[in-house]
Amino acid sequence: MTTPPARARRRHGPHRDPQIDENVLAATRELLIRHGYAGVSIDLIATTAGVSRPAIYRRWPSKAHLVHEAVFVGVDARPRPDGDFAAEVAAMVHGAVHMFAEPATRAAIPGLMAEIRSDPALQQILAARLETAARGSLTHLLPQAVADGAARPGTDPDTLFDTIAGAAIFALCIRDVDDLDALVDSLTDLVLHGTLAPRG
Amino acid sequence: MTTPPARARRRHGPHRDPQIDENVLAATRELLIRHGYAGVSIDLIATTAGVSRPAIYRRWPSKAHLVHEAVFVGVDARPRPDGDFAAEVAAMVHGAVHMFAEPATRAAIPGLMAEIRSDPALQQILAARLETAARGSLTHLLPQAVADGAARPGTDPDTLFDTIAGAAIFALCIRDVDDLDALVDSLTDLVLHGTLAPRG
Repeated sequence: MTTPPARARRRHGPHRDPQIDENVLAATRELLIRHGYAGVSIDLIATTAGVSRPAIYRRWPSKAHLVHEAVFVGVDARPRPDGDFAAEVAAMVHGAVHMFAEPATRAAIPGLMAEIRSDPALQQILAARLETAARGSLTHLLPQAVADGAARPGTDPDTLFDTIAGAAIFALCIRDVDDLDALVDSLTDLVLHGTLAPRG
Repeated sequence: MTTPPARARRRHGPHRDPQIDENVLAATRELLIRHGYAGVSIDLIATTAGVSRPAIYRRWPSKAHLVHEAVFVGVDARPRPDGDFAAEVAAMVHGAVHMFAEPATRAAIPGLMAEIRSDPALQQILAARLETAARGSLTHLLPQAVADGAARPGTDPDTLFDTIAGAAIFALCIRDVDDLDALVDSLTDLVLHGTLAPRG
């Protein structure tokens, strides 16, 4: 491993070596799958990625921040604002189930949920990511769908988001569901139609 | 603290002092609220409850098992099998939101979710408790409600349970919702009616 000059070593941002970031993130995902969240440490990640501990701490303030980036990097489910409401919600359920079912993500999510209870900065980062990924799109999508007559008025977009993400996490991380297609179908059905028999 | 004879000290079950159990469980809840799951240790619980570490380890194999009992003791939401379906589901949502919103439970849940990923015995205990508390009642309630014409056929009871528990946990532990009444109302509405506009 080459050691950059002392000044450059402290630099954050575009001047750092992106290959180190990629190696560390890949090692983190691999270790999460193999050892679970609790079994992963910065030491182990550094050894596996072939970098120094300081190289990691220059980039991420804690294991939780690093794991968060490792499992959510590239996740950016932008809304298609003119899409059909039911199709959009179905796509969101599909996206959530498949995202949380990724082996590294599935291993990481409960650990991250625990860490954000004591790390407000991480909670802010996660909230912003969720906002970008999906919650924000629902706050636009729902009123439009209500205006078009496609969605019931009065549905709370935050609760819809909690339901999609929370049900997917609970099914995958606590019930330990393996049949993703069946989960996507039944959760989509429940979210779209509810449980009551249609009247009339 | 009095020390029982060596033989009795190894005994589990009815012969042990129930006051110790109660003190330890109460101390655990108090410490969860004050320090969060990560900030609670068996040492700290022992000191706070005024018992020895071995007295705790004779009763619970790990911090996670102890925390699990501390936050779920007494939770036993038995179904009322002849109740109105919509009222039963509403009661279940209300019960889940208020249970997970208890300060000690809210502090403990993400930590416990993380621990069960690496502790299959704890996962079994939690699954059995959930089964007793609610999932089991849904597997009876739903087919009856479908037969009575109150519920849509085809709703998966496991997914309904994932939705109620998962949405409540996500809203309370990640979104950090404080308005429990509003959460109960919007989640009940979503689960019962879904999001699509009624047809016709």
